[in-house]
Amino acid sequence: MALILVTNDDGVLSEGLMALFEAMKEVAEAVIIAPDRERSATSHSLTMHRPLRVTEIRENIYAINGTPTDCVTLGIGKILKRTPDLVASGINKGGNLGDDITYSGTVSAAIEGTILGVPSFAISMLWDDGGFHFDTASAFAKKIARTILDKGLPRDTLLNVNVPNKKAQFIEGVKFTKQGKRVYCNSIQETYDPWGKKHYWIGGGSPSWEEDEKTDFLAVESGFISVTPLHLDLTNYDALSNIKNEWKEL
Amino acid sequence: MALILVTNDDGVLSEGLMALFEAMKEVAEAVIIAPDRERSATSHSLTMHRPLRVTEIRENIYAINGTPTDCVTLGIGKILKRTPDLVASGINKGGNLGDDITYSGTVSAAIEGTILGVPSFAISMLWDDGGFHFDTASAFAKKIARTILDKGLPRDTLLNVNVPNKKAQFIEGVKFTKQGKRVYCNSIQETYDPWGKKHYWIGGGSPSWEEDEKTDFLAVESGFISVTPLHLDLTNYDALSNIKNEWKEL
Repeated sequence: MALILVTNDDGVLSEGLMALFEAMKEVAEAVIIAPDRERSATSHSLTMHRPLRVTEIRENIYAINGTPTDCVTLGIGKILKRTPDLVASGINKGGNLGDDITYSGTVSAAIEGTILGVPSFAISMLWDDGGFHFDTASAFAKKIARTILDKGLPRDTLLNVNVPNKKAQFIEGVKFTKQGKRVYCNSIQETYDPWGKKHYWIGGGSPSWEEDEKTDFLAVESGFISVTPLHLDLTNYDALSNIKNEWKEL
Repeated sequence: MALILVTNDDGVLSEGLMALFEAMKEVAEAVIIAPDRERSATSHSLTMHRPLRVTEIRENIYAINGTPTDCVTLGIGKILKRTPDLVASGINKGGNLGDDITYSGTVSAAIEGTILGVPSFAISMLWDDGGFHFDTASAFAKKIARTILDKGLPRDTLLNVNVPNKKAQFIEGVKFTKQGKRVYCNSIQETYDPWGKKHYWIGGGSPSWEEDEKTDFLAVESGFISVTPLHLDLTNYDALSNIKNEWKEL
């Protein structure tokens, strides 16, 4: 039977993680190895300056006092008895779209799985103040997990899935997309400590996006589930050949 | 006069940062905005769960109790009086090569600069127990900074520079390279706390690399400075068109 490592960056107590776990248990054997508390925006951080503690909360559920990347590294390297067939990361509360995926712990867990040679996907649900329709995302997670286990993924490639926050019957379908491009918006608040000293707080703000009909962003905005294949090789090959020819003076 | 934001992930007290700062001051006006202490392997983390404090240590040197990404975000958004013409990140103690760049705070600072529309480069010096020849890297940093200010960079593209740890006269030259591929090596130590409970410590180990003569890794190993153009769009376009055709059942 296939083995699935389930993780996230919202922490082991997260409702989205449990929804994904229940879904993966219908597909294969599933084990949660997740951060003991919220680690959002930790990106692809690896904890190397201190030892990490692994706690078995109950059968097949482990919590680590570290980042999502730590969880995948320790899960594959030490905790699981055999190499998993799939890493499933999510369901994140809030989308991971466009350039913002580079901050995402959810996506980074899938990147780490891919680096370690295990097919991986990240799944996120768009933000909504009125709660989350995790059942919509977990139903799709089952489909995508079965398809990956069946067909595999291209070398060094993971899938980044974003699901509109709607009941399943209101989903328009599935679109395979490219990573969108965020237009910069200044979202830094100024605040003061009790002694009157100015501090800055990053966050809030509503991102806007470059118009491009093939992007992850536009797909979810139009009510579709977005599936974006991402790869680990960040080399810009066009720029590489241009620079080789034009930057002779270096 | 051009303005250069100088940052790193080893912290504001780092010798490599000061070497880069001195070099950038010979090219343009330079301002350091860097983490107040070491933030290695923080990756592209953005601190959103607490306010950040900016301290002007002395003229044109600011320390922030946050990550390299925080420094670039606040530097461009709040601290600098005009948008910088260049972000220079480094000189890191230790190379940032292959897949490992996804963990790197040094490279992430340059990614953040690029997201915010500012041409950016990261520069790292290979690790050596016997100390660092920062003068070799800072001399090259001047060249690359002048070239970027002169010619610009392709859209959404940053440069990742790695310099062998040698005196300048022993450097073989410059190679434009692609990102190498690390072969997984298990580098997790087991350790015990004072009460006898097992912990895991990630780190150590010597990575090995897939053989490919065009990679960053092989360039530095052969004594060349490696310059790799990286881009922000992680979409695997080949996989995108294949999956579109073959994954009809989703």
